[in-house]
Amino acid sequence: MKIAVLGTGMVGETIASALVAKGHDVRMGSRSATNEKAVAWAQKAGARASTGTFADAAAFGELAFLCTKGDVAQVALESAAAGLAGKVVVDVTNPIDAGKGRPPQLFVCNDDSLGERLQKAFPALKIVKSLNTINCNIMVNPGMLAEDTAVFLSGNDDGAKAVVRRVLTEDFGWKQIFDLGDITTARGPEMMLPMWLRMWGALKDGEFNWRLVRKSK
Amino acid sequence: MKIAVLGTGMVGETIASALVAKGHDVRMGSRSATNEKAVAWAQKAGARASTGTFADAAAFGELAFLCTKGDVAQVALESAAAGLAGKVVVDVTNPIDAGKGRPPQLFVCNDDSLGERLQKAFPALKIVKSLNTINCNIMVNPGMLAEDTAVFLSGNDDGAKAVVRRVLTEDFGWKQIFDLGDITTARGPEMMLPMWLRMWGALKDGEFNWRLVRKSK
Repeated sequence: MKIAVLGTGMVGETIASALVAKGHDVRMGSRSATNEKAVAWAQKAGARASTGTFADAAAFGELAFLCTKGDVAQVALESAAAGLAGKVVVDVTNPIDAGKGRPPQLFVCNDDSLGERLQKAFPALKIVKSLNTINCNIMVNPGMLAEDTAVFLSGNDDGAKAVVRRVLTEDFGWKQIFDLGDITTARGPEMMLPMWLRMWGALKDGEFNWRLVRKSK
Repeated sequence: MKIAVLGTGMVGETIASALVAKGHDVRMGSRSATNEKAVAWAQKAGARASTGTFADAAAFGELAFLCTKGDVAQVALESAAAGLAGKVVVDVTNPIDAGKGRPPQLFVCNDDSLGERLQKAFPALKIVKSLNTINCNIMVNPGMLAEDTAVFLSGNDDGAKAVVRRVLTEDFGWKQIFDLGDITTARGPEMMLPMWLRMWGALKDGEFNWRLVRKSK
């Protein structure tokens, strides 16, 4: 599958590398076609890896992962939106307000979410919020944890969620995948970030996740 | 141990009954000493159960559970504060804004929490946020779930957290108990409510919880 990864940070690079390793053709998009981190990644990742602007990557991909920082997600999608019309966009972002010190706060929560804002701003895109609740190493390799743990889907388009579920299952190995409902349910997973930060503080380790447990049979 | 339970709703009744069953003497406090729900509970719960005003219960208990609705927590503590000075108060509340329709939003989050507000308003109390992340049946009986799951402690006083940890462990059977840090860390568990609501919607069942999973050894 041809896949766009928007963003050259740790999350984007980890997802892009995992998708190349699974045999997908991946174009990493950034503000400039000559972004040094993207070019270095593509050289390392091999023949299935390429780079370009956000618009180049968007035009290339049948599916896109939005992996920028939350506060530039909307700007990145503005450059990419034309090429992404009608396509599935996995929104991995968290609305972290970098300007408010530590521990970080969210710049949107409670009565709205970044997922909803992006879907409203770009109605032609099929946005599916997912994977934003975990460290990027776990995103692409949930089997590194001792037991199966949970990941979530929020989005308005059932077909789009089915596409993302297939990638999560077949490429990354996720087993506890929960469809929470439409894009407004992204408020739930996005508001888990403050809890994630406190657990990270308590464990001194970000490589953890939550397993859903129900009643004994 | 003599324990006060402030609040006569489902959470208060479930916690009070569980504590009586474990051999504690429990006084359920409410706005009026003749609250019908409290009186009915005490008749059913037996000789170790009693009722009174918030102030009566506070004076009686060596430890208190705050189980009112979030939007009346501060008012309840105003009546109880004199009797609770220097005592440990387990804050089980969630800051649900009942006035904002469904699904509920929080009336404080992100840059503050209800736990912090209460600690600031009543500095003589040793407030420990805990148990607010789960259904009340699970609060007092985590063993009803198929596997051990997680519960959290947030508070400024380590001795107070040790008291709460002991009750959670010995009376209720909790095993995955995480000390997140001071009372400001209550923002994490309080902001899990929106996720809880969406999972409840997805599962059509509120009797679930999260198990912390870390890397394979």
